[in-house]
Amino acid sequence: MDEEFVVTPWEVRGRVDYQKLMQQFGARPLTQAEVSLLEKYAGEVHPLIRRGFFYAHRDLDAILKWHGEGKPWALYTGRGPSGPVHIGHMVPWILLKWLSDKFGVEVYFQMTDDEKFYDDPEMRLEEATKWAYENALDVIALGFTPDKLHLIIDTKDIKPLYPIAAKVAKKLTWNTVKATFGFTDSTNIGLIFYPSLQIAVAFLPTELHGRPTPVLIPCAIDQDPYFRLARDIAESLGYPKPATLYSKFIMALTGESKMSASNPNSAIYTIDDEKTIRRKIANAYTGGRPTAEEQRRLGGNPDVCPVYHYHMLFDPDDASVEKIYHSCKSGALLCGECKQMLYEKIRKFVKQHQEAREKARDKVDAYRLSSKLS
Amino acid sequence: MDEEFVVTPWEVRGRVDYQKLMQQFGARPLTQAEVSLLEKYAGEVHPLIRRGFFYAHRDLDAILKWHGEGKPWALYTGRGPSGPVHIGHMVPWILLKWLSDKFGVEVYFQMTDDEKFYDDPEMRLEEATKWAYENALDVIALGFTPDKLHLIIDTKDIKPLYPIAAKVAKKLTWNTVKATFGFTDSTNIGLIFYPSLQIAVAFLPTELHGRPTPVLIPCAIDQDPYFRLARDIAESLGYPKPATLYSKFIMALTGESKMSASNPNSAIYTIDDEKTIRRKIANAYTGGRPTAEEQRRLGGNPDVCPVYHYHMLFDPDDASVEKIYHSCKSGALLCGECKQMLYEKIRKFVKQHQEAREKARDKVDAYRLSSKLS
Ligand code: SF4
Ligand code: SF4
Repeated sequence: MDEEFVVTPWEVRGRVDYQKLMQQFGARPLTQAEVSLLEKYAGEVHPLIRRGFFYAHRDLDAILKWHGEGKPWALYTGRGPSGPVHIGHMVPWILLKWLSDKFGVEVYFQMTDDEKFYDDPEMRLEEATKWAYENALDVIALGFTPDKLHLIIDTKDIKPLYPIAAKVAKKLTWNTVKATFGFTDSTNIGLIFYPSLQIAVAFLPTELHGRPTPVLIPCAIDQDPYFRLARDIAESLGYPKPATLYSKFIMALTGESKMSASNPNSAIYTIDDEKTIRRKIANAYTGGRPTAEEQRRLGGNPDVCPVYHYHMLFDPDDASVEKIYHSCKSGALLCGECKQMLYEKIRKFVKQHQEAREKARDKVDAYRLSSKLS
Repeated sequence: MDEEFVVTPWEVRGRVDYQKLMQQFGARPLTQAEVSLLEKYAGEVHPLIRRGFFYAHRDLDAILKWHGEGKPWALYTGRGPSGPVHIGHMVPWILLKWLSDKFGVEVYFQMTDDEKFYDDPEMRLEEATKWAYENALDVIALGFTPDKLHLIIDTKDIKPLYPIAAKVAKKLTWNTVKATFGFTDSTNIGLIFYPSLQIAVAFLPTELHGRPTPVLIPCAIDQDPYFRLARDIAESLGYPKPATLYSKFIMALTGESKMSASNPNSAIYTIDDEKTIRRKIANAYTGGRPTAEEQRRLGGNPDVCPVYHYHMLFDPDDASVEKIYHSCKSGALLCGECKQMLYEKIRKFVKQHQEAREKARDKVDAYRLSSKLS
């Protein structure tokens, strides 16, 4: 069962061993000590943390301590806008919104239309920028107000970013980025420069506020290479080191460790209609047995099952999720019924989200950082 | 006499053989055909062209033909702001102003504060940006009005540039820029990306005007690698190829082929006072003989003499320049007298320039492209 796996910011291959991955990257496990500290300030612990979906970090304890001293900090995350958002993408953003609410801190949200353009030979820049605006609706729909959410669309909001990115870029050689990101001789110079821009946002709040304002970055663990570099150079540039909080990946409906943008059936998009959602869930891979009889007798395997994974991600009720887990293992629950339950939860989530999403249309520019600086 | 020489955008070593350099780069010699076409439209030929200081080009004929058809084009050049401007830097800008006046076209002037920061380990970004503002005074002092001169300070005016630079960057691989610019494993990723920004300005007028607006780039021939790349990729991006008009280098007062920023005595700065100018000219290397007696008998060598070079560059009167050349060769002119004559010319030029330069102070932002776009 110990298959090989590969994780880079651009690729996840094989079945991921998350403990091994954390060790490879050199991040630290989220322990009870950090969770308790978080609970002390937030008053509760978010299910995504409680359930171990966010499971590793760098300096989360340090930023909570900093918070305890009454000092300013900010949240930062991002999205590569190459197509519609799927509900899996929403998961870390839900935590982001929770953190912003509980701690009262600003969110810097980077839409990396440039990176998606650099990385995909087929992608036109205008298309990536269009997706940045579209995807921004999904972020805003979470309920952010413009004073708390600062959107950065790289090609549109480069101005405050570039001087910081320049300082970052001067610290990073070809050798370093080649080794860190696996670049080759035929990598284009846009993609080579791009890490400077992703790292720059980590230092932006300090520049804007004129005093040390570290960021906490909740994101999937494949983004660690960027922020490891950011941490390596932060102090030499006079910025505080960013802290990170890493999640596992969202399983594909097909059962792979991470969804693939190239297979639209592997994910449920926030713009999917009910019929499509129903079909996608109906066709999803499961941890179930070939026949109902076998399932009753031997039970299913929720640990490799995307249907269970989505119950875990989208059902806030711990008792309900645990019940699904155990009824699956015991054979009391069959996949058809389990999928029907999931459909109801997702349908409700998406319906509400789509309404909020449409209300955000035409409001994106008010959230853009540039509109607030000019 | 056929010494080795090396020319890159960052370094000139040895005594430059300009014909060989042009052939190495693959540029074309400026012939009577182009000069006549230029004269047809401009009504005259500028001394710097007549005297062969501008001596090579790419597609100058094509852009003049385009002009003849009543189609729009623009001028583009730039400066790496790493210190005060010397009067040698002014020389191509004088031609730039002449071209802008004679053809009634706009000038895009890029101040590459980012590049100077990337390239010089000791340079702080804020310092390079400060020099960009300082150097802009020297450009404006030539008499440009804000409707004709568009200043682009890279770190300040990146916004209209970045989307174009992104498209350029996607076309250029590490392999290509390594081979073109001699980058190494320890080159920083800022400098690696930078060619995209220098090339992007060549395509900016087309974007801003919404129709094909090629540029003519008057600059020193060491900038050819950038614009060769620009020409290679222009059509695949839907932009017209930039044309170029190449000058030789300005001789150092020490006699080398090109001035070195590290030796302040090798150049006269536009901010030097009269005493300093007098001293620098008095100490200049010459093509003269060790003694007056020998000079009278054998004559001097104006072809290797920076004093003659500056007469050629700054005296608009052909007869006067020719007289100096021949009197030097014949031994009729001694270096002391020749230097005194040069001092008078430079003193006058610098005095007038310094007055115009001070009038430009606090007006720089009105010339910046961003101030016109917002
Ligand atoms: S019962 Fe539910 S959790 Fe168990 S294998 Fe089937 S779909 Fe997955
Ligand atoms: S006379 Fe003038 S041109 Fe001739 S060598 Fe002396 S300084 Fe140079």
